[in-house]
Amino acid sequence: MTENTVDLSAPVHTSKIHLPNLVLFLQGVVGEKYVLTDAEALEKYAHDETEDLVFYPEVVVKPITPEEISAIMVYANEHLIPVTARGAGTGLSGSALPVKGGIVISMERFNKILEIDAANHQATVEPGVINEAFQDEVKKQNLFYAVDPASKGSCFLGGNLAQSSGGPRAVKYGTTRDNVLNLEVVLPTGEIIWTGANVLKYSTGYNLTHLMVGSEGTLGIITKAVFKLRPYPAHNLVMLVPFESAEEACAAVSAIFMAGANPSCLEFMERDALDWAIAFTESTLIIPENIQAHLLIEVDGPNKEDLYKQAETIFEVVGQFKIGEALLGESADEKDALWKLRRQAPYAVRHNSVYKEEDTVVPRAKLPQLLKGVKELGKQFGFKSVCYGHAGDGNLHINIIKAAMTEEQWHGPELKKGIEELFKLVVSLGGTISGEHGIGYVQKPYIGIALAEKNLDLMRGIKKVFDPNNILNPEKIF
Amino acid sequence: MTENTVDLSAPVHTSKIHLPNLVLFLQGVVGEKYVLTDAEALEKYAHDETEDLVFYPEVVVKPITPEEISAIMVYANEHLIPVTARGAGTGLSGSALPVKGGIVISMERFNKILEIDAANHQATVEPGVINEAFQDEVKKQNLFYAVDPASKGSCFLGGNLAQSSGGPRAVKYGTTRDNVLNLEVVLPTGEIIWTGANVLKYSTGYNLTHLMVGSEGTLGIITKAVFKLRPYPAHNLVMLVPFESAEEACAAVSAIFMAGANPSCLEFMERDALDWAIAFTESTLIIPENIQAHLLIEVDGPNKEDLYKQAETIFEVVGQFKIGEALLGESADEKDALWKLRRQAPYAVRHNSVYKEEDTVVPRAKLPQLLKGVKELGKQFGFKSVCYGHAGDGNLHINIIKAAMTEEQWHGPELKKGIEELFKLVVSLGGTISGEHGIGYVQKPYIGIALAEKNLDLMRGIKKVFDPNNILNPEKIF
Repeated sequence: MTENTVDLSAPVHTSKIHLPNLVLFLQGVVGEKYVLTDAEALEKYAHDETEDLVFYPEVVVKPITPEEISAIMVYANEHLIPVTARGAGTGLSGSALPVKGGIVISMERFNKILEIDAANHQATVEPGVINEAFQDEVKKQNLFYAVDPASKGSCFLGGNLAQSSGGPRAVKYGTTRDNVLNLEVVLPTGEIIWTGANVLKYSTGYNLTHLMVGSEGTLGIITKAVFKLRPYPAHNLVMLVPFESAEEACAAVSAIFMAGANPSCLEFMERDALDWAIAFTESTLIIPENIQAHLLIEVDGPNKEDLYKQAETIFEVVGQFKIGEALLGESADEKDALWKLRRQAPYAVRHNSVYKEEDTVVPRAKLPQLLKGVKELGKQFGFKSVCYGHAGDGNLHINIIKAAMTEEQWHGPELKKGIEELFKLVVSLGGTISGEHGIGYVQKPYIGIALAEKNLDLMRGIKKVFDPNNILNPEKIF
Repeated sequence: MTENTVDLSAPVHTSKIHLPNLVLFLQGVVGEKYVLTDAEALEKYAHDETEDLVFYPEVVVKPITPEEISAIMVYANEHLIPVTARGAGTGLSGSALPVKGGIVISMERFNKILEIDAANHQATVEPGVINEAFQDEVKKQNLFYAVDPASKGSCFLGGNLAQSSGGPRAVKYGTTRDNVLNLEVVLPTGEIIWTGANVLKYSTGYNLTHLMVGSEGTLGIITKAVFKLRPYPAHNLVMLVPFESAEEACAAVSAIFMAGANPSCLEFMERDALDWAIAFTESTLIIPENIQAHLLIEVDGPNKEDLYKQAETIFEVVGQFKIGEALLGESADEKDALWKLRRQAPYAVRHNSVYKEEDTVVPRAKLPQLLKGVKELGKQFGFKSVCYGHAGDGNLHINIIKAAMTEEQWHGPELKKGIEELFKLVVSLGGTISGEHGIGYVQKPYIGIALAEKNLDLMRGIKKVFDPNNILNPEKIF
């Protein structure tokens, strides 16, 4: 896909487009400076953080207004050129990769926080704002944007919307879907719409806002978002609890909620993830040999006494399992130290080996069964896994590690079969194959395990309503 | 529409169906006992609680399984017969009325709570379960179903799903949409699907669950729902605060959140609503003449001290406005007494006069502007309004009172124009025309004020994907 014509091999893309004409058109819309075509510049846009996938676009364009995007979409729709919107490229399912080539629209210049409406606890932002920058900015007004993905330091809010990203705080505050009120969207056919209204409740026709969230950039390009804010929680406490059995750690998760605690984070790490994170961070921490997993638990809120009461409840609950010495972090430094291993776990895995990350989610009391099943499938199909994740909402990131596998084994039918069995297990437990990373390109072969053919037909039908010529982010999800 | 042929006057319904054949078919599916055709039996199904609308179906059928509904849909789809699903008939927008005649499917026999899964804080129910019965049943296990519409004593959970019903507790716990995980649905073409999975986070293709919620029975018939539960809040406190100015009461709403309180209810009533409720309930309560509105505020949670702290914060905030004597309800009796007027307000209005209820919602800091605007429009267009509602989430129920208006005035162009102006005001404030009642039949003429033509086109397109022959609840929303 690096020739200077767009190779449009999908059935609907029957024409071949002359790249120089396309480039001239794009330069006319956004200015010469914001149209990239040389291979070196395109390299950055050819991959994200998903395994080792590489797909080059023909051209990258960096518009700055919805109207510019609208003009590009009208042209692309007329000439049947694939268009893929891209945020910060931190995706884990290949959603933002231009697998059919064509145009990548980089949203990096949509980087403004347009309004923080403190009186209404809402803010209007552009999708190229970095999640953490947004959190920091609203915090200055003692406000709280709750969604906190692991990649918060680099990911864009637009990408969070595309995947309905979660992160550790989703257990109390929900995912991106639960924190958005309204969206401005450029449709594949060029119209610019608002999906709803800036309100906390909405019963005015089909909910296009929620349809857009998690649609992975296949239905439209989000150009503004109105997010819900809350008062910044004045206090929090962090607890770290080592368990002698990983399955018991999972069982404790459900028991904590049953006891009435309302944690703002409830994270799980199994032994291998701990060891890898220790090595990666060159930590001198020594974890006793009999410890097989950690739970990391945070409570937050305006009332410190209430948090100590919740911590008491939680320590009582976990005390009923075989645990090591539980720790309570009260100062900022103590809390940071407790969080450190969990925060570094994804990077430690990435550093250690090529891997595939399966973003499974089940009802949380089913976590012990899921963990047990994963290990059994690993033995059966010859893969090693390292698991950690947002156990509070049943979301377990299962990292399948390449390690000593050959390329043949890694790309072979046995591992694929193992992943299929893993996803079948997840679905049999009432769960699904992605909780917060999306289906994108890498999980597409498995979507039929989670969804019936009729569900996929409905989704294809909806896609066609929004994008009759299938130009926007083709070949994703289904 | 009481002839014994189905009058199918919409363009897509070109055939005339012979009622006896239809009845025979339905009797074969559900048994003779569960097919009603005589006018007296049909009367109940010809109206709901929306104004004075009456539309008779040709036949009412009461299936008990998704498979029976599937068989009915396949037949209806083949013969192009309109089908409307009906819950308890408590709707306020005419959503469940068979405006094109045909078949009404009464969901009253889908009345079973199938499973309360305490370990996972979720329950699977049929849509004909009454909201309050469900709340009561889960409470026995110290669990909490949070959505609490005014009609909870009679409304069905299926109707709550169709409209994304809210109620006073939505301000803390969200509407029905925020409390559902997964749905079993019979599609207009007869297939039975589950829309998602029984999980707290979901990023596996387009969110069909959230698309179904609030679609007012136009996309499919819900036959099972998996709801999210929480631990039952052990304590609550209720505060009643009388204000000398209704606009100041509205302004206080936003100030309460700004101060960091997290009320579980925050209700508003203006003076007329109070007086009407007092008269209706034959209360001996005397409200001082200078009082123009009440705020009723509830806080709930596991920690009593925290609630007193929140109450303190709230009393501090409201103390900055011109208020009368604020009351705190601690015992069950005291709390009931404080809630009584608010709970009776809708019935008092209904009892007092024919009325139209407009379910407006705006960003909550815009409530004073909305209230002021409503009164000005009333003067301009000659209507009296009585307002109360869920001020915490900006949801104001504006009751337009017929009172001394003639029939000509009530159905005339001047009042319609006034309502249009009211909805334009709501939209100009960033709000929309329905927060929790839906568009249904009565608000359909106004939908273009809230939504652009392209939004409606997308919705029509989605409708066609689900219901290619437009047989399911036709003539609703758009």
